[in-house]
Amino acid sequence: MNLSFADALCEAVQRLRSATCVGIDPRADRLPAALRISTKDGPEARAAAVEAFARGVVEAVADLVPAVKVNIAFFEALGPQGLLAYREVTLQARELGLLVIGDGKRGDIGSTAEAYAAGHLAEPRHPAALGAHDAVTVNPYLGADGVLPFIEAARANGQGVFVLVKTSNPSSAEIQELALREGGTVAERVASLVNDWGAALVGASGLSSVGAVVGATHRQDLARLRALMPRAPFLLPGFGAQGASAEDVTDAFLPGGLGGLVNASRSIVYAYEKEGTDDFAGAARSAAKSMNAAMRLALERAGKGF
Amino acid sequence: MNLSFADALCEAVQRLRSATCVGIDPRADRLPAALRISTKDGPEARAAAVEAFARGVVEAVADLVPAVKVNIAFFEALGPQGLLAYREVTLQARELGLLVIGDGKRGDIGSTAEAYAAGHLAEPRHPAALGAHDAVTVNPYLGADGVLPFIEAARANGQGVFVLVKTSNPSSAEIQELALREGGTVAERVASLVNDWGAALVGASGLSSVGAVVGATHRQDLARLRALMPRAPFLLPGFGAQGASAEDVTDAFLPGGLGGLVNASRSIVYAYEKEGTDDFAGAARSAAKSMNAAMRLALERAGKGF
Repeated sequence: MNLSFADALCEAVQRLRSATCVGIDPRADRLPAALRISTKDGPEARAAAVEAFARGVVEAVADLVPAVKVNIAFFEALGPQGLLAYREVTLQARELGLLVIGDGKRGDIGSTAEAYAAGHLAEPRHPAALGAHDAVTVNPYLGADGVLPFIEAARANGQGVFVLVKTSNPSSAEIQELALREGGTVAERVASLVNDWGAALVGASGLSSVGAVVGATHRQDLARLRALMPRAPFLLPGFGAQGASAEDVTDAFLPGGLGGLVNASRSIVYAYEKEGTDDFAGAARSAAKSMNAAMRLALERAGKGF
Repeated sequence: MNLSFADALCEAVQRLRSATCVGIDPRADRLPAALRISTKDGPEARAAAVEAFARGVVEAVADLVPAVKVNIAFFEALGPQGLLAYREVTLQARELGLLVIGDGKRGDIGSTAEAYAAGHLAEPRHPAALGAHDAVTVNPYLGADGVLPFIEAARANGQGVFVLVKTSNPSSAEIQELALREGGTVAERVASLVNDWGAALVGASGLSSVGAVVGATHRQDLARLRALMPRAPFLLPGFGAQGASAEDVTDAFLPGGLGGLVNASRSIVYAYEKEGTDDFAGAARSAAKSMNAAMRLALERAGKGF
């Protein structure tokens, strides 16, 4: 890779005029009729069906969006064969020119974090690579020991890291919104750490390759978190099925439509169900186009158009 | 399984008079001469060597200790073949009568946490099971949404969950020791949640199958965390290589040597290096015996003998 992750992301976002990230969350129990599997199918057949579904979605959106976020959980839930499918899906996405975010939310103490970083941020053609990752998601609960090994590995290869700051789920407040005696919240403290950790990885674009996961569902928090992390790309899950709209996320963005990557998983991947069609790839493509259009309009109205 | 995880753990601890958990952390770059591999070896050969090492250690300690904690990171770092080896190691440990803790520290939002729970807590002979797990470790940063799916799955099968509360690493304080406006720290708030989450899973032993990961390296915190979680089994990593001794951990224990499971990884698994021998299994067995003896003495002195 010649560009840093942050610079490659900015380039792709502006070229495609899209800040959409398609979340590849292929649930084995929610496949279209042509790929349907049962619990009686063996692990190879189950993994093959999930892989075919994921590849179909990736191919359908590859020329429309800058990135996909592939959720390791749904592949890990298929056992070791699922992980082989995971790698194939990420390799395909990379070959089609997409930036690939491996969403595993790993976090462990120093030496173990190094082991995770080795697998998650290996050269994609290395036989032991988990997948072809341009960036990965990481959990900050263990502090710098759990995060810096990923950042070191990412820096060496021009990759990126998105640290969980404020997640999109309803109970995120239980830990992340605890009020601190020093002022602010746990999430805001993590945001400050992310800003510090990313200072040495700022690219020509002005953005760092150390980003933050910030739920698109928390509209009221975005401006404050952006102020704490002025150079971090925000990965914003929660669009669509989880309830966030294009208007909800504009505060996370910088001028030119940069700095935000809005993730939609179910509303794109399972658009075929709502459309009442078996053409899941076509439905995903249409849903991605609609989301791009909605985001373009909302960003323009906010004075942050591409 | 007939017993709950907590009850099975108590039974094994008292039968063996051991609260030792052997942490299976097999690093590919740190194998004994007979199993040594290089980066030129293919993924199958690398995974096979790591598996042989792990199996040797498991077999050597199986009649001495109640449990092993198998660290998924070191297998994941070998790619999909490493995950196949992981499953074999956990199946072997289960067959030898050990309780198996799958140490993956997963944490994600609700629907994704369900997918992780499906793979991590599946019936061990299910072809898609990640491994044969009696319990797993979980990260609490996402709140109840990220933890309860694991607890639900565990409850259905008589398994257990250890939630990260206070980790053993030096930078754990960065998030976990932040002082809250309401009083206490983040770790103490998580401890209260763990106590609540585990209330419905208390077995005949009086202990819950929802436990806590509390670093053995934090001697000064153990009594306070025990008071907040009177029924939680504590998984206490950090013994040995990370610096904690038997005397450091007794405050975590309840009478009868119950309530604590002290994990040592490097000091047992790599005992052969210190001994200057290639007999890694024999060295691991000796190290586990020494640790058992040290723990018996320390617990007796603290009035909490088996």
